[in-house]
Amino acid sequence: MKGQGTRIDAVMETIRSRIASRAYPPGARLPSVRAQAQAMRLSVSTVVEAYERLAAEGAIRSRPGSGFYVSGPAAPLALSEIGPKLDREVDPLWISRQSLETGDAVPKPGCGWLPPAWMYEDGMRRALRAMARADAPVLADYGTPLGLPPLRQLLARRMAATGIEAAPEQIMLTDSGTQAIDLICRFLLEPGDTVLVDDPCYFNFHALLKAHRAKAVGIPYTPNGPDVAAFEAALREHAPRLYITNSAIHNPTGATLSPVTAHRLLKLADGSGLVIVEDDIFADFETAPAPRLAAFDGLDRVIHIGSFSKTVSASLRCGYVAARADWIDNLVDLKIATTFGNGHLAASVLLAALTHSGYRKHMEEVRHRLAEAMDKTVARLRTLDIQPWLVPPAGMFVWCRLPDGVDAADIARSCLKDDVVLAPGNAFSQSRSAAGFLRFNVSQSGDGRIFQVLARALEAWGA
Amino acid sequence: MKGQGTRIDAVMETIRSRIASRAYPPGARLPSVRAQAQAMRLSVSTVVEAYERLAAEGAIRSRPGSGFYVSGPAAPLALSEIGPKLDREVDPLWISRQSLETGDAVPKPGCGWLPPAWMYEDGMRRALRAMARADAPVLADYGTPLGLPPLRQLLARRMAATGIEAAPEQIMLTDSGTQAIDLICRFLLEPGDTVLVDDPCYFNFHALLKAHRAKAVGIPYTPNGPDVAAFEAALREHAPRLYITNSAIHNPTGATLSPVTAHRLLKLADGSGLVIVEDDIFADFETAPAPRLAAFDGLDRVIHIGSFSKTVSASLRCGYVAARADWIDNLVDLKIATTFGNGHLAASVLLAALTHSGYRKHMEEVRHRLAEAMDKTVARLRTLDIQPWLVPPAGMFVWCRLPDGVDAADIARSCLKDDVVLAPGNAFSQSRSAAGFLRFNVSQSGDGRIFQVLARALEAWGA
Repeated sequence: MKGQGTRIDAVMETIRSRIASRAYPPGARLPSVRAQAQAMRLSVSTVVEAYERLAAEGAIRSRPGSGFYVSGPAAPLALSEIGPKLDREVDPLWISRQSLETGDAVPKPGCGWLPPAWMYEDGMRRALRAMARADAPVLADYGTPLGLPPLRQLLARRMAATGIEAAPEQIMLTDSGTQAIDLICRFLLEPGDTVLVDDPCYFNFHALLKAHRAKAVGIPYTPNGPDVAAFEAALREHAPRLYITNSAIHNPTGATLSPVTAHRLLKLADGSGLVIVEDDIFADFETAPAPRLAAFDGLDRVIHIGSFSKTVSASLRCGYVAARADWIDNLVDLKIATTFGNGHLAASVLLAALTHSGYRKHMEEVRHRLAEAMDKTVARLRTLDIQPWLVPPAGMFVWCRLPDGVDAADIARSCLKDDVVLAPGNAFSQSRSAAGFLRFNVSQSGDGRIFQVLARALEAWGA
Repeated sequence: MKGQGTRIDAVMETIRSRIASRAYPPGARLPSVRAQAQAMRLSVSTVVEAYERLAAEGAIRSRPGSGFYVSGPAAPLALSEIGPKLDREVDPLWISRQSLETGDAVPKPGCGWLPPAWMYEDGMRRALRAMARADAPVLADYGTPLGLPPLRQLLARRMAATGIEAAPEQIMLTDSGTQAIDLICRFLLEPGDTVLVDDPCYFNFHALLKAHRAKAVGIPYTPNGPDVAAFEAALREHAPRLYITNSAIHNPTGATLSPVTAHRLLKLADGSGLVIVEDDIFADFETAPAPRLAAFDGLDRVIHIGSFSKTVSASLRCGYVAARADWIDNLVDLKIATTFGNGHLAASVLLAALTHSGYRKHMEEVRHRLAEAMDKTVARLRTLDIQPWLVPPAGMFVWCRLPDGVDAADIARSCLKDDVVLAPGNAFSQSRSAAGFLRFNVSQSGDGRIFQVLARALEAWGA
């Protein structure tokens, strides 16, 4: 039998760890000595002594006549400390930072956007010149709560073209596609809720869900969409609140949802109360239209979001969300409370850029350039025995398998020393089952040096 | 004694309300039938029947061999449904929406910003023309994780002028001052944490804290800052995590923190682990510099935030936060996870606008116009026996007491019918003790019709 000293230490350690995990949040009243003693099956005197020692340490404090309370300050929310500790090379936030921090001189085949020279530069210059002559409220005033009406009307017409019926009143502008998903998470999630994501999926979804203290569960992605049997099993096992996915072209695989998979997913969602968030950010890269869940569902349990960061400008922050009118009303409240409103000027610049005929021509050219870059990049990768999981019909990404046994994080680490930023597979994989994959952005893979550096890294690895 | 039917209904009702309040969150396993029966002091058969009926309704479902689980979807986070139900007229979100929705033709003495004609229109036009000639990355690329380096350097120099030592690496750009506070709340708060605010304070702080499910506690505001004795008592009673306040000119009262109050607050904060967020959004309206808590404290436990929405443009979204370097690092992660980054273009336009000599002259003129408008508005209000709580030395707001017994929400409701948007006191007051107050924005009070409408409303009220 353990001595009282050991038992006191054990109680102290238990309480310290509950404070650290916020099971006992700052300012919270601790269970009474009697209740704690009963719960831990220890004597009251042991618990009293442990409480007194913790109070002497400052971890808790006594309020005469009222009991013991947790002291502040508690540990703040550090995303890097939530969940399993990741290698920097597969930490979604680290990859984002790395891509955002490095200058244009560094080849970034791992990054998630087009080079600035591929973006809609002419259109942006034209739109900015027009804004310099705009009325004073466009230059100085907050926007309306939902956001610029003519831009919302334009978005409604664009959605109608993919079969999604959304009235302009069902569309709210945001500062980005990411912010759109963030507001939806604020609206629908509680800490501890489960969210389904594709495995692999856009790595920032993992970081975003961490910030909401949600539990992400990955569903294996197939060339036709998520694996329906795994999806059904996850619904049964985890009772998830949300499923977040891409429409049009899937990130990172470049795959396309098939109509039959879309229909099955919606049937399963119907039976379980699941809400689906469909991120349509790659819409304008499509060459043949894929099904939209929001079109099948009629914006009942599907929320449709998007932005133009990948096609017009990432410097300009403007995204949108289309959803049930009653949900939009609550999302507007959350937007005002947390950012006061989206950018009126950004929305006005975007509207001017999108409504000029130059945008259609610009995107035709981008799709053409991407198709060429896709062929060239895939051919170059194949010479290194790096094989595409599938050759996507459109878009900027190709998801590739390294030669057998090669670890993508190791290769990424090695290439970074030579100033080439890669995106290793496990950053995209909730189950961490993509160690043998890399995502390449074909628009950022034109520099021959990338393949020399890759070849050297593979050789050094012994592949 | 009640019959079994009644008891079954009672159990069902209890469980339904626990599901609604998320005491039983979606996907959670319900207590076993035996445990529930024991806790409710009912027979096992009563609980079994209640569970079965709830399962038949779809509220919960049975998993063979495992028990009963709550079905989705749960009630989402509707800000309008958290906390006490407010009259629309004193609901902070409703006031924000009302001000944001109404056109420029409607007089809005209750709104929180300058008319567009008072803003830095020339500077904005000049900056936009310059941007139309900028390099492609400014037009198209994401910004760096911290945000535009030369703007952060400028902000560091501006802070130095009010005694705040912040290296550019300790400054992170955001999309607004509100977003800066939101990210800090995400970093430091857990649901249920207590936050001190001034009573009265900027009403959107209430909405923001609701969105974080934090508990706000109001500290009465005096002409020299928060009431120190009440502040000390609140620290003892509530163990708050944060205190959010204005520096420079207090919103809504126009009061200024005195050095002795600042010093006492910081001493109290030191002893309790409290973090203070100081919102410096009204800095450029100051005619004589007030003390900054961040200057006294050296950015140790004070976080300094601000934006230029009130002076340059609200259409352009750009704010900032200055804090300890290790906190900034975590805030960058949260910013990337939840919005991917702040607007590169907005930061570039703001930098161009602020670095032109026209900005200093513009603000001189604004301060002059505000001083004139303050005198005129106060004189007009006094003819209606509406008295300033104090006549602020600078800024756009004057906090006014209505004639004895008159209810500001009633007056606001009545004036709204005549298309005049007012800001009634209780929207700013956590304790709801400001029913006799209105906040006037003197820059929006030039229209004589406002005072006619007010006079009629007061008369109708019987004042």
